[in-house]
Amino acid sequence: MAISNTIKRALIVLAHPEPRSFNAQMKDAAAEQLRASGIAVAVSDLHQLAFDPVEASHHFPVRQDPDWFRPQAEQRYAFEQGAVSLDVKAEIEKLQWADLVIFQYPLWWYGMPAILKGWIDRVFTYGGVYTSRERYDHGRFQGKHAMLSVTVGAPQSTYGPSGRNGDIDLVMWPSCFTLYYVGFSVHRPFVSYGVEGGLQYSNTSTMLERLSLQKDAFKTRIAGIESDKPMEFNRWEDWDADGRLQASAPAFSQFIRHPKSS
Amino acid sequence: MAISNTIKRALIVLAHPEPRSFNAQMKDAAAEQLRASGIAVAVSDLHQLAFDPVEASHHFPVRQDPDWFRPQAEQRYAFEQGAVSLDVKAEIEKLQWADLVIFQYPLWWYGMPAILKGWIDRVFTYGGVYTSRERYDHGRFQGKHAMLSVTVGAPQSTYGPSGRNGDIDLVMWPSCFTLYYVGFSVHRPFVSYGVEGGLQYSNTSTMLERLSLQKDAFKTRIAGIESDKPMEFNRWEDWDADGRLQASAPAFSQFIRHPKSS
Repeated sequence: MAISNTIKRALIVLAHPEPRSFNAQMKDAAAEQLRASGIAVAVSDLHQLAFDPVEASHHFPVRQDPDWFRPQAEQRYAFEQGAVSLDVKAEIEKLQWADLVIFQYPLWWYGMPAILKGWIDRVFTYGGVYTSRERYDHGRFQGKHAMLSVTVGAPQSTYGPSGRNGDIDLVMWPSCFTLYYVGFSVHRPFVSYGVEGGLQYSNTSTMLERLSLQKDAFKTRIAGIESDKPMEFNRWEDWDADGRLQASAPAFSQFIRHPKSS
Repeated sequence: MAISNTIKRALIVLAHPEPRSFNAQMKDAAAEQLRASGIAVAVSDLHQLAFDPVEASHHFPVRQDPDWFRPQAEQRYAFEQGAVSLDVKAEIEKLQWADLVIFQYPLWWYGMPAILKGWIDRVFTYGGVYTSRERYDHGRFQGKHAMLSVTVGAPQSTYGPSGRNGDIDLVMWPSCFTLYYVGFSVHRPFVSYGVEGGLQYSNTSTMLERLSLQKDAFKTRIAGIESDKPMEFNRWEDWDADGRLQASAPAFSQFIRHPKSS
């Protein structure tokens, strides 16, 4: 089952506080599929790691400016000085190691749980994973694959283009774009709908069946990840000097307001 | 300077680790404007509070299910049992108290810093701030006003409808929609562009001038908040039983992909 020619190593980042949750089980399914295909798997279980998601001065014992804490400037300085905190350094090394990164989490308030958002805030640093020249299609992680896998409580119909919860593509866009920013080939999110409270109804046949189906679908998706066409985003050359899309460029990554909207 | 007939109390939620940051100073400007208008002001400075943004089992000593931690279910149960953790209880009480809530933060990776995202994750709870019947235009916080005020590093041109960083309205949409979900009248975000690293160039006349201009503009915006038309979102009655927008309804809150997009 050689699913991959170029993917040899995968990182799964899991953000759920319950080790037996739907999300944790989806992580297990992904790891199982990957390992069965001969792909080495590392897991960052953020709750198990007790990862501190809050960017703050105490993470920076070596300071460019000891009196005034500027997060972005100190992140950059720490990298230049080889003084990145050990927890962040470990995560950056995993990102460098992996050919594929899967993020598994419940969608909370239309975004990542704080522990994962803070993993991004602290790990996606200037120098560590990008520079002013290494972004977008020139990003550090060109050639690496990334995919978000989320659970949501509501049914799929509410996340359609005119759904009550908003177009799922719109809701996920800022997170997908974040991955593209550092150069990943971003695959369309894998969304498990109707997961109320995370296996809240775990003892019902309905939810167990849903989990089983989603695990299988997720495994199939992962098995075909290399033939899966990544999301299209604009490239550096599409923008003018002011960062505006040039008239001649396609507009892959953009949404516009609905024409009926005011 | 009676700026308000109905706004008597305001809460400012600040999320920045440096007490002298551009963001902190914007918070001060807002508080100054509000107090000068006779409005009582409370501030939740999340770093000063050392607010724990990670939703986890240790916040729930009284458990519906001691063996399997389901965050949403336990949030609801804690509310029903009067066992909400004290830090969250205090924030819910501030939300109940306030007629206007302003969120001041730097946009990190197209979203809230983790400490603020986790404030939402932990405070916006079933029972505490919404129920299945009290959402959207039937939300608990109907009649209350809310506004996001953010700083971004890049210039405004990169956040236009075709900008390199994505349409700012699109980037902010999930956060604005979160506020609407619990019933707020959501005002368009106040965005301070070109704030590199948060007063990184604080000693330059350019940045000091920018801060001064933004403070004034922010005060003017706040002074006119009651005559400021809130963002338009769809209402319960606009959706059908499956949560899809009805053909007859306007589509205020929806974005669609650019027609040129694949």
